[in-house]
Amino acid sequence: MSWLAGLEERARAVLPAHVFDYVATGSGGNATRDEAADAWRAVRLAPHVLRDVTSVSLATTLLGHEYAVPWGVAPTSAQREVHAGGEPAMLRATAAAGALTVVSSNAGTRFADLPDGPWWLQVYVPADRTLAEPLLHAAVEAGASALVLTVDTPVVARKPTESSFWELADPQWLRVNFDEGYDDRPGAEKATDLGPHDLGWLAGVSGLPVVAKGVLRPDDARRCVDAGAAAVWVSNHGGRQLDRALPTALALPAVVDAVDGATQVYVDGGIRSGLDVVAALALGADAAFLGRPPVWALAEGEAAVARLHAELAVEVTEALTLAGCRTPADVRGIAAFPATP
Amino acid sequence: MSWLAGLEERARAVLPAHVFDYVATGSGGNATRDEAADAWRAVRLAPHVLRDVTSVSLATTLLGHEYAVPWGVAPTSAQREVHAGGEPAMLRATAAAGALTVVSSNAGTRFADLPDGPWWLQVYVPADRTLAEPLLHAAVEAGASALVLTVDTPVVARKPTESSFWELADPQWLRVNFDEGYDDRPGAEKATDLGPHDLGWLAGVSGLPVVAKGVLRPDDARRCVDAGAAAVWVSNHGGRQLDRALPTALALPAVVDAVDGATQVYVDGGIRSGLDVVAALALGADAAFLGRPPVWALAEGEAAVARLHAELAVEVTEALTLAGCRTPADVRGIAAFPATP
Amino acid sequence: MSWLAGLEERARAVLPAHVFDYVATGSGGNATRDEAADAWRAVRLAPHVLRDVTSVSLATTLLGHEYAVPWGVAPTSAQREVHAGGEPAMLRATAAAGALTVVSSNAGTRFADLPDGPWWLQVYVPADRTLAEPLLHAAVEAGASALVLTVDTPVVARKPTESSFWELADPQWLRVNFDEGYDDRPGAEKATDLGPHDLGWLAGVSGLPVVAKGVLRPDDARRCVDAGAAAVWVSNHGGRQLDRALPTALALPAVVDAVDGATQVYVDGGIRSGLDVVAALALGADAAFLGRPPVWALAEGEAAVARLHAELAVEVTEALTLAGCRTPADVRGIAAFPATP
Amino acid sequence: MSWLAGLEERARAVLPAHVFDYVATGSGGNATRDEAADAWRAVRLAPHVLRDVTSVSLATTLLGHEYAVPWGVAPTSAQREVHAGGEPAMLRATAAAGALTVVSSNAGTRFADLPDGPWWLQVYVPADRTLAEPLLHAAVEAGASALVLTVDTPVVARKPTESSFWELADPQWLRVNFDEGYDDRPGAEKATDLGPHDLGWLAGVSGLPVVAKGVLRPDDARRCVDAGAAAVWVSNHGGRQLDRALPTALALPAVVDAVDGATQVYVDGGIRSGLDVVAALALGADAAFLGRPPVWALAEGEAAVARLHAELAVEVTEALTLAGCRTPADVRGIAAFPATP
Ligand SMILES: Cc1cc2nc3c(=O)[nH]c(=O)nc-3n(C[C@H](O)[C@H](O)[C@H](O)COP(=O)(O)O)c2cc1C
Ligand SMILES: Cc1cc2nc3c(=O)[nH]c(=O)nc-3n(C[C@H](O)[C@H](O)[C@H](O)COP(=O)(O)O)c2cc1C
Ligand SMILES: Cc1cc2nc3c(=O)[nH]c(=O)nc-3n(C[C@H](O)[C@H](O)[C@H](O)COP(=O)(O)O)c2cc1C
Ligand SMILES: Cc1cc2nc3c(=O)[nH]c(=O)nc-3n(C[C@H](O)[C@H](O)[C@H](O)COP(=O)(O)O)c2cc1C
Repeated sequence: MSWLAGLEERARAVLPAHVFDYVATGSGGNATRDEAADAWRAVRLAPHVLRDVTSVSLATTLLGHEYAVPWGVAPTSAQREVHAGGEPAMLRATAAAGALTVVSSNAGTRFADLPDGPWWLQVYVPADRTLAEPLLHAAVEAGASALVLTVDTPVVARKPTESSFWELADPQWLRVNFDEGYDDRPGAEKATDLGPHDLGWLAGVSGLPVVAKGVLRPDDARRCVDAGAAAVWVSNHGGRQLDRALPTALALPAVVDAVDGATQVYVDGGIRSGLDVVAALALGADAAFLGRPPVWALAEGEAAVARLHAELAVEVTEALTLAGCRTPADVRGIAAFPATP
Repeated sequence: MSWLAGLEERARAVLPAHVFDYVATGSGGNATRDEAADAWRAVRLAPHVLRDVTSVSLATTLLGHEYAVPWGVAPTSAQREVHAGGEPAMLRATAAAGALTVVSSNAGTRFADLPDGPWWLQVYVPADRTLAEPLLHAAVEAGASALVLTVDTPVVARKPTESSFWELADPQWLRVNFDEGYDDRPGAEKATDLGPHDLGWLAGVSGLPVVAKGVLRPDDARRCVDAGAAAVWVSNHGGRQLDRALPTALALPAVVDAVDGATQVYVDGGIRSGLDVVAALALGADAAFLGRPPVWALAEGEAAVARLHAELAVEVTEALTLAGCRTPADVRGIAAFPATP
Repeated sequence: MSWLAGLEERARAVLPAHVFDYVATGSGGNATRDEAADAWRAVRLAPHVLRDVTSVSLATTLLGHEYAVPWGVAPTSAQREVHAGGEPAMLRATAAAGALTVVSSNAGTRFADLPDGPWWLQVYVPADRTLAEPLLHAAVEAGASALVLTVDTPVVARKPTESSFWELADPQWLRVNFDEGYDDRPGAEKATDLGPHDLGWLAGVSGLPVVAKGVLRPDDARRCVDAGAAAVWVSNHGGRQLDRALPTALALPAVVDAVDGATQVYVDGGIRSGLDVVAALALGADAAFLGRPPVWALAEGEAAVARLHAELAVEVTEALTLAGCRTPADVRGIAAFPATP
Repeated sequence: MSWLAGLEERARAVLPAHVFDYVATGSGGNATRDEAADAWRAVRLAPHVLRDVTSVSLATTLLGHEYAVPWGVAPTSAQREVHAGGEPAMLRATAAAGALTVVSSNAGTRFADLPDGPWWLQVYVPADRTLAEPLLHAAVEAGASALVLTVDTPVVARKPTESSFWELADPQWLRVNFDEGYDDRPGAEKATDLGPHDLGWLAGVSGLPVVAKGVLRPDDARRCVDAGAAAVWVSNHGGRQLDRALPTALALPAVVDAVDGATQVYVDGGIRSGLDVVAALALGADAAFLGRPPVWALAEGEAAVARLHAELAVEVTEALTLAGCRTPADVRGIAAFPATP
């Protein structure tokens, strides 16, 4: 088994059960969580040959900034429960690899304490929008270069193992970017009336580009684009929100078609290897994001996060070379949908 | 395992073997029974996002009456064998949940003894139609608000475990709405010449709307609509009649297309969870019905039937919220049929 | 397990290993043999409802003669190795059930010794056609009412277990309708240059209608019809000739389309139950034939062959009734090919 | 299990682990290696009947020369590690069977020492093309009748077991057609800028026809044809280059369509039996090549390679006869793609 493929089992060995379970869990019967990775693994590739691949570059421009690789770290809470290094370790190792980190609004590290490195802030919008403003301003000040609005969470889905996590988790590591007493204020609960206009509101308040994370339908992708989204992020929240939501690998192509180049399209959910990243690019994504794998790596420490990126880079570079692709963009379209005989 | 998912095993532990087997059995090789639930579980959903779900309501109008939820209890015989509470317990708990109960014409409780609550009567038509009239009148008088004609049973399919049930069952709990000696009268056997016109005859005799239960083909659905059916109910009788009949999840969309809004369309067979109800709505059903699950719940008593409805309500409400749907009608069309890569 | 489903295992217990293995064997890797039955079991049915099924009849006309049921016994050699009763027992029990028997030209019983009952002769044509004439005349004289030309056997496929059978088999029970020394004559080997014209030649020599058995392709079916075949029999020889030949359940619909009513179409291969017969009718066959099941039944004696027919009749009658079909012809078209969601 | 089917296990028993593993290995997660053989086995055949198959011939013309059979031996390195007989034994046994051998440019035998028999040279092109000329001239002089340019290997994919092989392998048996010190010369590494024009360059330098091996896409096939390729060889390098590349059985039909008869089309990858060869012909290949099976056979010695060809010939001849095909070309189009009911 490769080092990457062993991440989850090593994390299980290292982490307290309630933390491992919190990271692992999906909602409902886990159908969506469980089929995510298989959907990528089922994609077949039709490599190009006889093309000059003397210099292959993974460099990828996301919202106008160049990154060294076409993947990034998806926002996940509880990183300090996973490892004392927490978000700073994650961001440091990821930035060193030239990759982008998306920091969860539920992070256990104050934005001001984040180390150097490119990051975007993931946000949930509260019913009373004005309550979000301090958080947004703190993030802008601390250097966030974009916002990622999570649109698939009007309420948090029930998950069997979550309650034991919240009981056992250390409060000092949770949601430290919110004032004490925040959750008790009227209107602090998640907005259930989120609409495309909130994308514009967030952009206005923060002055940052806003990405819509959690889109699975082409029509919604189009609504986001029309409302000024800087990019559309295909996600089912790692199988943690609506169970039986379709795998992102299957949702992606129709969203790419609908967006039709108007903005970039990102995707996450079940990306576990460099070939999965390549499958995502082949199906039209501009970048892929990883949720659990960097968290599992973090359980082994910052060096393991660095190794995660390094292993992915080797795999993706090799795959591009063997597929006759000089850049991530060249990969688009090499997914094969052969009729089974 | 969730409480809902454990219903069958708990019923197996509680019920006498001949009763459990009677409820469980399908006909033939059980192909149709066994694939029913999987067919729903295979439906994938493409949730809407960025839609106001501040107030989600499960309220559903069936034949002009409003119910609190888009599901109901399908007609099943032998409820008093399953639990002394029988049909009254089933109806009470179901009505308390705001849901509709369909009472089997083979019920073990006299219609006059049913508690308050909305119910429809399921009927089989005998060869000599006039023999059915007393039963129909008793039901009307006792408050049935619609008739459900079961159209898939010109004869009862052989089922391996049925004979032992009939030997061991207590006759005082069986078919108590028929006069003594009814079955020996000429013409009391099930009509084998049932036709669409019988829908009209039933409506005339009873003054009630008549639903055709057991339709799997679009052409038959159309014939029912043309003959004045109040609604079409897609069912294969829980895999208890023609074995190898197609799963209702696969039959439903074509029937919905054929009926084209002329009447409502209901469906049953293998509905085991709130997400299954959502899948049925997504494929175009106006309501889903459950056969075995309420019977298994009844084996644990009336409170368990109440809990069945409560759990479903939590699941369906959560799923609607996460899918950006304010009402059951909003769910139509979110079934995803992605091409596998 | 039903009595029908247990036939093979009971035969295994009763028969000498070399005989059981001879009957069981397929050619090559047994791919074609092994998937035959599953292909029928995978057919789903969309039953009609609200149709008068007061009188259901299985009566079926094959080549102008009426039989009580829409199935028959396919030609199989070695019946006397299987049971001393041999072909006479098979024919007697089958005729008693109102069904047709096809007798193999390799039968272990002289045609003149066959009991009363409808039968067709299966033939292989030798390189020197004239050598076949005595056999044909003997069959005509003994009452054969049609010929079945096996067209899929220009050579006999290698089968792993066959050699041990031929060593151990009692020669007095094999191919008794050929003169001693027949096989040593020049031109006695199977014709490798068989063509559609041989159908006409057989008809001319025998005065009987000729059925082409072993057709899998629509174009070949058409060639047979154009050459005067009385019927086309879709078969892959029970997986005993070309391995990886497609299942007959999958070959049948295109052949039915190509023949387009010009002649009848029969099918065999993997028919194991009444519902399999119904699946064959649903896909357009006029009749289904069974190869191994009657042989397995014969291992238990003539009464078991009778029971085989009786069980099939119960199953098929029930299925027709439940499917709203009064006759085998009504079954055509009820096969369901739903798109999986 | 047939002798052919047992080849791999017998080779495992005979070979040193590092050699067996080197032959067995695929790249990445072995997805492409592992599904190759199944893809051929899934092809179903629709045999012709009533066609004269008195004389069936496997004779096949490849690039203007006639061979006795429609398959050949694909280029594989390390044959002398597998058996002291090495390439000479492979070529002798293959030529005796009337079949073509493709010799790897990494062969462990000097071209001048090859025995009589038809062979083609497989080549990789170095960054500095001129470095390849001595090898090409040596091959031409030694009688190679065509070149096979491997186009799927701009770099060699990482394979878990390879390093231990290179450590343990005897250098005197590796790449003996290169001068000492060749690999250290600048420009000796594999060209990463290979293009269609290299086909023309190779033809010019050698005066031989050039086949492009490693094509999976129709567009690339067309580019090769337009650049003067003598034939297109569909291959994914036995699953040793890009993992998750599509199975050649699924890539073949579209390539055949794109080439549209302009050149021949060959295929390799997972061909394990005569029926697999027939499947390849049925999907439009002019010839199939075998990589690992002849290597496994060689592990048992030259006689086993001879037996490999003899067994294939028996199987393919039987299959052609049973499929109503007199020649390999007749097989085209008998692949069946039936819609599953
Ligand atoms: C432990 C955990 C915490 C998460 N927290 C957040 C979050 O705070 N905000 C958010 O938008 N998504 C969150 N997600 C979802 C991820 O951003 C991402 O969509 C998902 O994990 C991708 O699937 P994968 O884990 O299979 O890679 C979380 C996921 C996990 C596993
Ligand atoms: C024990 C039992 C008794 C039933 N009795 C009747 C009945 O009397 N009338 C009727 O129309 N359907 C009857 N049905 C069929 C149900 O109404 C319903 O169609 C079926 O159970 C739905 O499938 P499910 O059990 O998978 O939910 C019965 C089903 C069961 C399991
Ligand atoms: C033991 C055995 C002997 C057979 N002998 C003949 C034969 O002599 N002539 C013939 O045309 N088919 C022969 N067949 C093929 C059958 O007629 C028929 O096509 C096949 O058995 C149908 O498949 P099933 O066994 O799955 O029902 C034989 C089949 C078996 C199993
Ligand atoms: C041990 C081994 C060595 C190989 N060496 C070469 C080589 O030197 N050049 C080449 O073009 N292909 C090489 N191949 C690939 C084969 O030519 C062929 O494409 C592949 O083995 C076909 O798949 P199969 O092994 O499933 O039949 C090699 C394959 C194996 C297994």
